[in-house]
Amino acid sequence: MSGPKVRLHVDQPLGEGQAVAVLEGAANYLFAVMRLGTGAEVLLFNGRDGEWRARVAEANKRRGVLVCEAQTRRQDFPPDLWLLFTPVKKERTNFIVEKAVELGVARLMPVSTRRMNAERLRLDKQQAHAIEAAEQCGATFVPGISDLQPLDRLLAGWDPARRIYWADEIRAGSDGTWPGAPGAPAAILIGPEGGFTPEERAKLDSLDFVSPVALGPRILRAETAALAAVTLWQRSFGDWA
Amino acid sequence: MSGPKVRLHVDQPLGEGQAVAVLEGAANYLFAVMRLGTGAEVLLFNGRDGEWRARVAEANKRRGVLVCEAQTRRQDFPPDLWLLFTPVKKERTNFIVEKAVELGVARLMPVSTRRMNAERLRLDKQQAHAIEAAEQCGATFVPGISDLQPLDRLLAGWDPARRIYWADEIRAGSDGTWPGAPGAPAAILIGPEGGFTPEERAKLDSLDFVSPVALGPRILRAETAALAAVTLWQRSFGDWA
Repeated sequence: MSGPKVRLHVDQPLGEGQAVAVLEGAANYLFAVMRLGTGAEVLLFNGRDGEWRARVAEANKRRGVLVCEAQTRRQDFPPDLWLLFTPVKKERTNFIVEKAVELGVARLMPVSTRRMNAERLRLDKQQAHAIEAAEQCGATFVPGISDLQPLDRLLAGWDPARRIYWADEIRAGSDGTWPGAPGAPAAILIGPEGGFTPEERAKLDSLDFVSPVALGPRILRAETAALAAVTLWQRSFGDWA
Repeated sequence: MSGPKVRLHVDQPLGEGQAVAVLEGAANYLFAVMRLGTGAEVLLFNGRDGEWRARVAEANKRRGVLVCEAQTRRQDFPPDLWLLFTPVKKERTNFIVEKAVELGVARLMPVSTRRMNAERLRLDKQQAHAIEAAEQCGATFVPGISDLQPLDRLLAGWDPARRIYWADEIRAGSDGTWPGAPGAPAAILIGPEGGFTPEERAKLDSLDFVSPVALGPRILRAETAALAAVTLWQRSFGDWA
């Protein structure tokens, strides 16, 4: 349980002996807030090179240098699963992002739907939230987050080789089989709190690459449905098997 | 999407023509905050008789009477699954309670462990939180919450016919089979953020009724593990099949 207390996402390459410059916000956090001095250890990851133990070689108020010493965790890449979700209230959208990082998705894609009831999604804040979630849970991968895009436009350009599992609350209670195969590209689609409109439902029902799936007999909130669906997909087709 | 806007948990019996007295806090909420007057409709549930549409017959500041008209949802009873969890920070404990209500567990049992790192658990607040979660998500059942009890005492008195699935983060990455059978009494055990101590692990490993289970290759926070484990159990042995 001992070891470095700080775990930081950086953009630079990591590797044995690699020097990593830290600037501005990160320098302030490490050297002023956390009061790390020369010789202190931190954990670094960048989403590509795994996790590294690094040592502070220079520490100033506005910049510093860390040097990588040894890899402490191999790079994990999640299965090729995208999570398409309609933004909900801020706290619950944050929750979807955080839990998707832990459970392991490759990409987060916010979609707008008719009944969407959410403030404007700040993409930069959501991406920062994903990075923070990864820093805190020990993940080595941070899924990218796309710009919000309308569901109909996304469906119009969809590659039919990637099956969309549509968590359809109206089918709650129907049988629980999920079509599909391990390793195949996939996506999960979660609607807004008010559900999809009849027109949106008809569109989804008409598409061969969309498979409606049920998540038990009870009504789940959007963020709960997102988590449960990712969990079930991971167990059936992802890397939890 | 129209219909009554207020959904309220009550303690009294519900049935056709049944009058339900509302007092104090509930009366204030219905008649002052929500400004419902005579003739307005609400939804009621009590965890036993399903959900009923009721109409306001009398509305005063401090008391009122509702009369049940028709059942709008049958009573749902979740499978016989208990969730044993070590309380974490307040917001995340609330989250465990809320999501357990949605996903369907019969009972919530907070357990204390050596590395527990949480404020004192207020049982009344947690029970109120469970009721509020049920009111908001449309559930008709509210799981009871036990008093916090030490894990070792709980294990000492455990009925071995109820299998405990121990979500063991150290086994992350091991194979994903869960022993068990549909409909059998079961419990899920989630440890504290710092994990169980070696002594606690040895104890759990020595018990025939405890089955360690893995939740994928990535590290999950306690509340995420709770949700994922309940989801997987529901799909394999509960009422999501």
